[in-house]
Amino acid sequence: MTIPQSAAERIMARIATLAAISEEPDRLTRRCLTPALEMAMVTVAGWMQTAGLTVRRDTVGNLIGRYTAAHAPARTLLLGSHLDTVRDAGAFDGPLGVLLALAAVEDLSARGMRLPFALEVLAFSDEEGLRFGTAYLGSKAFAGGFDPATLDLRDTDGISLADAIRATGGDPAALAGARRAADDLIGYCEWHIEQGPVLEARDFPVGVVTAIAGQSRIAVRFTGQAGHAGTVPMAARHDALAAAAEFVLAVEARAGQTAGLVATVGRLLVEPGAPNVIPGHVLLSLDVRHADDVLRVAACADLAAIAQAIGQRRHILVGWAVLQETPAVACAVGLTALLAQAIAAGGTPVQSLPSGAGHDAVVLSTLTPVAMGFVRCRAGLSHHPDEWVAPADVAVALAALQRFLVLLAAAEETGSTETQRRGDAG
Amino acid sequence: MTIPQSAAERIMARIATLAAISEEPDRLTRRCLTPALEMAMVTVAGWMQTAGLTVRRDTVGNLIGRYTAAHAPARTLLLGSHLDTVRDAGAFDGPLGVLLALAAVEDLSARGMRLPFALEVLAFSDEEGLRFGTAYLGSKAFAGGFDPATLDLRDTDGISLADAIRATGGDPAALAGARRAADDLIGYCEWHIEQGPVLEARDFPVGVVTAIAGQSRIAVRFTGQAGHAGTVPMAARHDALAAAAEFVLAVEARAGQTAGLVATVGRLLVEPGAPNVIPGHVLLSLDVRHADDVLRVAACADLAAIAQAIGQRRHILVGWAVLQETPAVACAVGLTALLAQAIAAGGTPVQSLPSGAGHDAVVLSTLTPVAMGFVRCRAGLSHHPDEWVAPADVAVALAALQRFLVLLAAAEETGSTETQRRGDAG
Repeated sequence: MTIPQSAAERIMARIATLAAISEEPDRLTRRCLTPALEMAMVTVAGWMQTAGLTVRRDTVGNLIGRYTAAHAPARTLLLGSHLDTVRDAGAFDGPLGVLLALAAVEDLSARGMRLPFALEVLAFSDEEGLRFGTAYLGSKAFAGGFDPATLDLRDTDGISLADAIRATGGDPAALAGARRAADDLIGYCEWHIEQGPVLEARDFPVGVVTAIAGQSRIAVRFTGQAGHAGTVPMAARHDALAAAAEFVLAVEARAGQTAGLVATVGRLLVEPGAPNVIPGHVLLSLDVRHADDVLRVAACADLAAIAQAIGQRRHILVGWAVLQETPAVACAVGLTALLAQAIAAGGTPVQSLPSGAGHDAVVLSTLTPVAMGFVRCRAGLSHHPDEWVAPADVAVALAALQRFLVLLAAAEETGSTETQRRGDAG
Repeated sequence: MTIPQSAAERIMARIATLAAISEEPDRLTRRCLTPALEMAMVTVAGWMQTAGLTVRRDTVGNLIGRYTAAHAPARTLLLGSHLDTVRDAGAFDGPLGVLLALAAVEDLSARGMRLPFALEVLAFSDEEGLRFGTAYLGSKAFAGGFDPATLDLRDTDGISLADAIRATGGDPAALAGARRAADDLIGYCEWHIEQGPVLEARDFPVGVVTAIAGQSRIAVRFTGQAGHAGTVPMAARHDALAAAAEFVLAVEARAGQTAGLVATVGRLLVEPGAPNVIPGHVLLSLDVRHADDVLRVAACADLAAIAQAIGQRRHILVGWAVLQETPAVACAVGLTALLAQAIAAGGTPVQSLPSGAGHDAVVLSTLTPVAMGFVRCRAGLSHHPDEWVAPADVAVALAALQRFLVLLAAAEETGSTETQRRGDAG
C-alpha cells in the first residue's frame, strides 16, 4: 500500500482541482449535463485512464472506470459517488467518494495488484437534482428506475432533460429500459462526507452508516382570517401565523421525544404578509426523517393530530398533504460489518450512525447490497463553500477502504460474503 | 331635517357611483393624483356645487367645499374624510365620511338654513398612501407637516410625487409651507367605518372614538444557524424559525394581558426557506397598538426582553429595530362629548371605543381639535371588496351628525364650546 497520508494529500489536491471547475465564476455550481460537469468528468476520466482503468460513459453522462479482476470470470464491486453539486457548493460533497475510490484502485494498480473481483469506480452525473429539480438522475439511469416522465422536465432556461441528453449526443429513449446487469455484482460501497455534526461532536474521523433515513415531506396549510392589525381585538382573531407558530414548536418538541428523529419546518409562507394585516394563510413545509420507518410514520401521525387540534382550538382550517414518503434503506449487514472491521483494524473505534441525508446508495440499493462510510466534516457544514474535511481524516477513510478491499477479497475467495444472499430488489 | 332614511339611500347610491370610478377594470383602486381619483373628486365637487357649496382644490388635489355661516365674522367647522383607496378596496373606507358630511350640509342648504359657523367639507386626496408608500399626504398638505422629502418618492412607474403634482398643474414647492390657517377653526369631525368587529359584536350601529391608538412598528431578526434538515440532530440545532415561533406566541400572549392592546406579526420571512434546510434567519414585523402610549411602550419593552431571552436560551442572535413610533391621539373632550350627546339623543346607547387604525383625524389633530364617529361594518371587514355598511346604520350616523351640528350651533352661540381651549399643536 501507499502511505495513505500522501495519497490523501493527492485526493485533497484533486478535490481542489475539481472545485475550480464551475458553471459560475465565483462559486462552485456543477449541474448535470453542463459543460462544467463534463469538464470535471473528463478530468476524472483522465486520472482513471492513467491509473489503468477502462473508462466508459453512459447516456446521462455517468462515468464508469473499470479495473478488472485477477481472474475471469469474476464478480464486480461498485465504488463511487457523484460529481454534480448544489449551487454555491462545497468541494467535498460527492467528489470525496469518487476520489477515495479512485485512490484505492490507483494504489492497487501501482502495485500491479488485482483482486478476485473487478472494481468499478462510478462518478454519477446527477445526485443533487439542481438542474431539473429531481434527485438521483445519474444513479437511476445506472441502476434502473429511471422515470421516462422526467425527460420532459425543464431547467430554468427551458431546456428539457431530453434535449440536454441529445445535446451530448445521447439518446433519451435508451434510458427507460437502461439498467446495469446485477448478476455479477457484489455490492456498492460509497464514502461521503457526513454533512452533519455527529462525528465531530464525538471525535471520530470516520463512521459506518447503518441505514439511510426514510423521509416524509408534507405540506401543511393553516387558513384563518385576515384582518386589520389595528382594529381586530386579540380575542376575535383567527391568526394563521399564531397557529403555525404553535405547530412549529410542536414539531420541534415531538422530534425531541424520539431518539434519532429529525423534523424540520424549513419553509413558511405568510399571506397576505403585510405588517399591518393579521395573517390569513400560512403554508409551511414539514420534513420528517428516521432510519426506522415505523417511528417516522408514528411521528407524522402525531403531528397531523396536533395540527388538527391546534386548528380546532383556534377555529382555523388545517390542510395536510403528504408530498413524498421515502422508506428507509438499511445498509447490507455483511458489507457493513466488513467496513466496520476495516475501520477498527486501523485503530479507530467504530462509530455507527444513520444517514439523515439521501445518497446515491439509496438508488443503488435497488440493484445490489450497499454499504456506506462517512467522513467527519468541519462544524457539520455542507452545501456551503466552507464545507471542509481534514486531510488526516481523508487518510483514515482511504486506509479503511483499502483494508475493506483486502477483507472482501479474502471473503470472496472463501465464498463467505453475504452478498449472494441478497436478491434483486429493483 | 330630511328623513335620514332617504338621505342615507342617496349616500349609498353615491358610494356606489364612486366605487365604479377606478384605475383598474375589475376592482376598486384610486391612488392619489390619478385620473380615476380626479374623476371621483370632480364628481363630488359637482354634488357640492349643486348643494350650494363653494368649491376649491389645493396643490395635492384635496377638495374643499365651503358652506358659509349665518353671519360674518364666524368660525369654521371642518368635516370630511378621504377619497383615495387601497388596492382592491371596499367602497366605504373614506367616501362614507365625505358623503355623510356633504349630506348634512346639503340638508341645511335645502332648508335655507345657516349655522353660526361655516362648514368645510374636506375630501382628502391621499390617506392610504398606496401610490407613494407614505400615508396622509392629503391631510398633511392641508394641516401642515408636509415633508418636502416626500416629493422625491416615486410610484411603481417611477413617477415622483413632484412630477405627479406638476402634471396636474400644481407647484410642488408651494407644499412645504402650506397650512390651513387655524385661528378660525372650531375643530374637525370625521366619520369613518370602524374597520373592526367591535360595534357589530356589541350590536351598536355607531360609536364614538375616544382616541386613535399609538403604534409601534418594529423589525425583529432572529439569526441562528442553517443546516441540513436530515443530518443535524435536534439537540444540535439553532433553528431561527423555532425561535421566531416562540416569539410569535409570546406576542399573542402579551397582547392578551392588557385590555385594548393589539400586537401582530403580519410578515415573517424565512431564509434560506428550503424544505430540507434548517432556517438560519427569520425576519419578522411586529405591530403594537394601544390608545395609551404608556401601555404600548411597556408592552414593547416586555416583548424586546422576551425576544432576547428566547435568543439567549437558544443561542440565537436577536436584532430589534424600531421603525416607527406614532403617539396616540386623544380626541377632543368637548367635541367628543357633544358627538356622544348627539348619538344618545337618537335613542342609541353610546359605545365609546378607541380606533386601532389611523385616520386623517390624526394629522388634523395637529391643527385643530378632532372628534370621530365610527359606523358599524359587516364582519369587521375593510380594505376588501366585500366591505359593507348597512343603509340603516348610515341613516343613524347622518342623524347623529345633524344633531351634532345643532348642538354645536347652540354651544357656539353661548360661547360654551371647549374648542377655544385648545392651542395650536402643529
